Amino acid sequence: MNSHIKYNEWLIVEDGFNPENNLASESIFSLGNGQMGQRANFEEKYSGETLQGNYIAGVYYPDKTRVGWWKNGYPEYFAKVLNSTNWIGISVRIDDEELDLSSCKVLDFKRVLNMHEGYLERTFKAKLNSGKVVRVRAKRFLSIVDAEISAIRYSVTPENFNGNINFELYLDGNVKNQDSNYNEKFWDEVSRHSGKGEGYVMVKTKKLDFHVCTGMKYFVEKNGEIQDVKPIVNDREKYVANSIDIKVKKDEKIVIYKYASSLSSLNYSVENIMEKTVEVLDKAIDKGFDNLLEEHAKAWIEKWEESDIIIGGDIAAQQGIRFNIFQLNQTYTGTDERLNIGPKGFTGEKYGGSTYWDTEAYALPFYLNTAGAKIARNLLLYRYKHLEKAIENATKLGFKDGAALYPMVTMNGEECHNEWEITFEEIHRNGAIAYAIYYYINHTGDKTYMTDLGLEVLIGISRFWSQRVSFSTDKNKYVILGVTGPNEYENNVNNNWYTNTIAVWTLEYTLEALSYVNNVAPDKYNKLLDKLNFDSEKETKHWKDIVKNMYFPYDEKQKIFLQQDGYLDKKQIVAAELDPDIRPLNQHWSWDRILRSCFLKQADVLQGIYFFEERYDIETIKRNFKYYESRTVHESSLSACIHSILAAKTGDIDKAYELYLRTARLDLDDYNKEVAEGLHITSMAGTWMAIVKGFGGMRVHNGKLCFNPMIPEQWENYSFSIKFRGRSLIIGVTKNEVKINNRSDKNVSVVIFGNEDKLPGYGEKVFQKE
Amino acid sequence: MNSHIKYNEWLIVEDGFNPENNLASESIFSLGNGQMGQRANFEEKYSGETLQGNYIAGVYYPDKTRVGWWKNGYPEYFAKVLNSTNWIGISVRIDDEELDLSSCKVLDFKRVLNMHEGYLERTFKAKLNSGKVVRVRAKRFLSIVDAEISAIRYSVTPENFNGNINFELYLDGNVKNQDSNYNEKFWDEVSRHSGKGEGYVMVKTKKLDFHVCTGMKYFVEKNGEIQDVKPIVNDREKYVANSIDIKVKKDEKIVIYKYASSLSSLNYSVENIMEKTVEVLDKAIDKGFDNLLEEHAKAWIEKWEESDIIIGGDIAAQQGIRFNIFQLNQTYTGTDERLNIGPKGFTGEKYGGSTYWDTEAYALPFYLNTAGAKIARNLLLYRYKHLEKAIENATKLGFKDGAALYPMVTMNGEECHNEWEITFEEIHRNGAIAYAIYYYINHTGDKTYMTDLGLEVLIGISRFWSQRVSFSTDKNKYVILGVTGPNEYENNVNNNWYTNTIAVWTLEYTLEALSYVNNVAPDKYNKLLDKLNFDSEKETKHWKDIVKNMYFPYDEKQKIFLQQDGYLDKKQIVAAELDPDIRPLNQHWSWDRILRSCFLKQADVLQGIYFFEERYDIETIKRNFKYYESRTVHESSLSACIHSILAAKTGDIDKAYELYLRTARLDLDDYNKEVAEGLHITSMAGTWMAIVKGFGGMRVHNGKLCFNPMIPEQWENYSFSIKFRGRSLIIGVTKNEVKINNRSDKNVSVVIFGNEDKLPGYGEKVFQKE
Repeated sequence: MNSHIKYNEWLIVEDGFNPENNLASESIFSLGNGQMGQRANFEEKYSGETLQGNYIAGVYYPDKTRVGWWKNGYPEYFAKVLNSTNWIGISVRIDDEELDLSSCKVLDFKRVLNMHEGYLERTFKAKLNSGKVVRVRAKRFLSIVDAEISAIRYSVTPENFNGNINFELYLDGNVKNQDSNYNEKFWDEVSRHSGKGEGYVMVKTKKLDFHVCTGMKYFVEKNGEIQDVKPIVNDREKYVANSIDIKVKKDEKIVIYKYASSLSSLNYSVENIMEKTVEVLDKAIDKGFDNLLEEHAKAWIEKWEESDIIIGGDIAAQQGIRFNIFQLNQTYTGTDERLNIGPKGFTGEKYGGSTYWDTEAYALPFYLNTAGAKIARNLLLYRYKHLEKAIENATKLGFKDGAALYPMVTMNGEECHNEWEITFEEIHRNGAIAYAIYYYINHTGDKTYMTDLGLEVLIGISRFWSQRVSFSTDKNKYVILGVTGPNEYENNVNNNWYTNTIAVWTLEYTLEALSYVNNVAPDKYNKLLDKLNFDSEKETKHWKDIVKNMYFPYDEKQKIFLQQDGYLDKKQIVAAELDPDIRPLNQHWSWDRILRSCFLKQADVLQGIYFFEERYDIETIKRNFKYYESRTVHESSLSACIHSILAAKTGDIDKAYELYLRTARLDLDDYNKEVAEGLHITSMAGTWMAIVKGFGGMRVHNGKLCFNPMIPEQWENYSFSIKFRGRSLIIGVTKNEVKINNRSDKNVSVVIFGNEDKLPGYGEKVFQKE
Repeated sequence: MNSHIKYNEWLIVEDGFNPENNLASESIFSLGNGQMGQRANFEEKYSGETLQGNYIAGVYYPDKTRVGWWKNGYPEYFAKVLNSTNWIGISVRIDDEELDLSSCKVLDFKRVLNMHEGYLERTFKAKLNSGKVVRVRAKRFLSIVDAEISAIRYSVTPENFNGNINFELYLDGNVKNQDSNYNEKFWDEVSRHSGKGEGYVMVKTKKLDFHVCTGMKYFVEKNGEIQDVKPIVNDREKYVANSIDIKVKKDEKIVIYKYASSLSSLNYSVENIMEKTVEVLDKAIDKGFDNLLEEHAKAWIEKWEESDIIIGGDIAAQQGIRFNIFQLNQTYTGTDERLNIGPKGFTGEKYGGSTYWDTEAYALPFYLNTAGAKIARNLLLYRYKHLEKAIENATKLGFKDGAALYPMVTMNGEECHNEWEITFEEIHRNGAIAYAIYYYINHTGDKTYMTDLGLEVLIGISRFWSQRVSFSTDKNKYVILGVTGPNEYENNVNNNWYTNTIAVWTLEYTLEALSYVNNVAPDKYNKLLDKLNFDSEKETKHWKDIVKNMYFPYDEKQKIFLQQDGYLDKKQIVAAELDPDIRPLNQHWSWDRILRSCFLKQADVLQGIYFFEERYDIETIKRNFKYYESRTVHESSLSACIHSILAAKTGDIDKAYELYLRTARLDLDDYNKEVAEGLHITSMAGTWMAIVKGFGGMRVHNGKLCFNPMIPEQWENYSFSIKFRGRSLIIGVTKNEVKINNRSDKNVSVVIFGNEDKLPGYGEKVFQKE
């Protein structure tokens, strides 16, 4: 573990100043409210290692593609969420010396992320080179009640001197994405305004014309009294500031309240943004810091009611899962269906903040079961709205007649990724988007989604699969050649079992859906088929033929599904035999060595079994789990959670627990030494699943919520909350019993350990474990 | 064909001004002398499309790698031959107007490459916007007698006016590689000197400290009389010039003789370069343009004696093969074993001018049989000297104990290429380097090469193969996983037949070589084994086991070798069925579509059969040829020549001719619309082979030269020259007979159509065709 991060149930605490971990801490202590995110950078100047990062959801830049060797079909750009105007800045000059933790002595440094109430607090004492000592306390939050408001309370107290303190409160739009492909800045200034007590910077992106106006207002108090400061106004390109001098005596406390807002043309017309920004800031000033924080904290506490998981007797696990839930709720709130969940949320720049298959395959269940069906539906709508672009994307790659290939990475529906083995070949993502429709409807019962929107997406995806398969006269079967599975440690393989499986499943599910919609809404059905030029007889005949005659690699001897054709030609070694010095493999082995080894980044066969477990008997699951888990190095953050769920499914609770811990504290303990780049947000949803679906054994069968709870030896008890079809349940598990509490006024049927039971509204039942 | 390039036996003629073809013509009309090369840029200003290019052999720049997504093992840089100081520049200002063919009316433009005598001549009339007309004749060459001297004769004659002509003769080091990864310039100025009648620019590379000094001296004549011009000296960073005003009357001819030299720290100490440059220029001035050109032309005529191929009755074929031979001789002279043959020679920047497997697999036979054994040996020495780096390269990729992997692309022995599927996986190149040793010894009989140097290289390569194979318990055979064959239209395949074949062959050949050296030179043998820590018993036992138990993909039904595992799962279509509109595929299909199609860029199985034809009966060759030729789209410039040779071998002379034409006029006719980037130099050696080994049927068996000549219907006769073990032969083929002329004073045994015969010194024999 990171020894400077302390165990605590509700707090993440960094005790002591650790410049060598600063980049990682900036990620871990990030704040976000679904609309924007802010890394835990310091308000005052810091000349040490830092990645100043403030990102606004939905505002991105199409950064010109950089490749070594261009391949036909590559996209022109990679969309990147933008590092935007720095709004936290407060430079502090004490007499003649600027406060900079990198160049003075730092005492009693503490950074605390209060997950329960959603704020970040930092306290320290700094002994300057002059010998002067100041005490600083900085607290900030991005409101989740009004997501346009951010606020900072920044206090400075001289401990051993009287003197002058100069504060420069600023906004600085002169920022750059660290991951800029050609080291370019993405913003141009549109206008700026700097007045006494306020400042505004309006910038727009060099391409796409996103406008963002960032504004600030502030107050200064000394010893609790508001000061009438005489600011000097400074500005230069993309930069506005107020400079304030305050005379202080020893132990007098100066407190600055800085309010900021960043509004964008995503939500306002360019003409109105500035005016709106002023309005928001006035509203913030009116309410004041304490009131704003109070309503914000209250909202967080309510969020926890819906999504908390309590673990008794294992504080590391408790902190881990809360950290995961906290970050998920900071990243995506589901209120805007144009937004989605970047693999690193707003905590870093890697992966560009764009949308991956992670959303459908890993993140959806968390939001569905904690935030509710409407929010999950917004995730589906995101893809529905991108259907046309997915068809364009497939067309570019040579498919036709309405075949849709959703992009590997996207911001607006267009493909961004440019590594052929992933961009063109990791087509399994298309299956996950179909699977999310199934998952959503199975959990919510909202079949209107299928009738109104889902079927259209399914037809596009199925058309893709039906063109992407080819018929092998050698095998006398359909095959899928040249793909990369979720296990990115093999590229351009033939007949990846998972890809073949999800392709066939999509075709089957679409066939079902066609007949369902035809039955319940024949008018809509006919209208859709017309719109899509769908030749029902011909197309479905071909699909059925594929379903019937698809090839799946299988080893008769060991009775296991095979990762892909030729997998058994690899030298078979288990991961436990690997020298720990060469792990993670991707930092020690050249790429070709990884490719030809049997080791898996994540196990595709297990991903498939996880999705479609009802098709396989428990012995089959056990055999495959044993075989593939031993060959998996879990160098994908998305791996351990699925393995943990399957370990639980097979009854191997110790293994499930081991894998749970790996996923739950991945970032807090920085297993892979990469947290500096940002957190693994989407895999955090997998951690949630490892408890709810793994230990809790939650499934939905035939519209009924089922549980098969077990509890790791290390835990005394645990509980989690679930929203399900208008109900809200708390499931508490101890060593001996399972308690289910129905928090809604409606009945709910649950199946516990295979036995169905009914809970009345507000009812509670205790089930003895078998 | 390119309609603006005229058919001619000895000349390449561009008649008329074609700005739209200028980039391509600049490539086609390039000059080179093995030490440097110059694209056919204009001396005077040209504001139209041009790639100003002047490249010096052996002087390169390690340009920082550019990739989209970094993979472990990628090299830090790509070495690039450098675009160097422009030495041809002569700006011409007629009264107030600068001569620029892009902005005036161009009449009677002609560009002639005289291949027989090795010079470039350009003539035109230009009608300026002022209405003034000048006649210009520019002739230049890069001496092959003294490769440090370049010379230009540039004449201007006013046709309809009296006036002032200003000439600015300059050197300009302010040049940039068009293919610079980060748009950087690679040169810094060290010093410059500009005097009356001369100028010098010394630059050095920003990395590696290559110094190049370029100097110029000149004369001016009017109506045949040397003028005492009063130059004004101009200079600025990296630029020196003499500006000369000359009063002229209508029909007076001004002739400028400009001599230039570019010497580098590759051959001179930095302190001496400048002095040496002056010396070279003085020598040039002393000899004078006409004498220099005369000795240069004479040397070219001698070169043609050694390497010419004469084709009767087919001028397109004649011009094609001469153009190929001319460019090969311009690119590499074999006098400096530090140099090698870039795929584009000095005619463009693509592929960086670095060394590829093309040298061993395609270029070696041409130089061996026309320039002689010593020069071929230098090509082998180049790799011998890189052995240590090849071992380092393998070590970086995880191999050990002296395993050597030669780089895919290199300048100094280090790997430059950064595309994992090629860099890490196109390991067959290692086999070609072993094969070249075999080929050289088989042709020359120079077995000392094996004893002294060859065996050491072979052991390094064999150690690589023995570690790179793995044992498949599933197949109970050795396999080679995760490779790319010469057919780069599939990546990361298992058991590429060609790679498996050449790997096993290398092991066998190394085993043979070990026992040979042990027999003939046991001391050297023991010393070498000692040096290499070679555990003879253990290592050779493992090698023999691999030789015995290697897996080769084979189709029992069709009795053909298989390109790779899974090849028959692909949809089998023949190239003839492809819509011409989608060819070349690599410009129309996205990469994944190419990968999963059955189409081959070049056919690996045929490459293997070509190398090892004596192992296969003619029916096997025919079956495989038929199968793979029909699936090959020849989008590699290295493809058609091998197919042509095999077509001839199987007796299909029409197919052989069709494929020969495709390779011979690839650049002159710009089949693939890419000549603007430079010529396909290495494939030109394949064209030579298509005649000598294809139609001529030349082979060496048991130390004897064998021929099985045939002649395409379209030809009346053809003849080629061959150097062989101290002999020099001309083989002339007509419809009915084969005439062999021994130009040396020694006997030579030849096998014609399977019958051995002896030719005495200076003897000639005629054989009737069967």
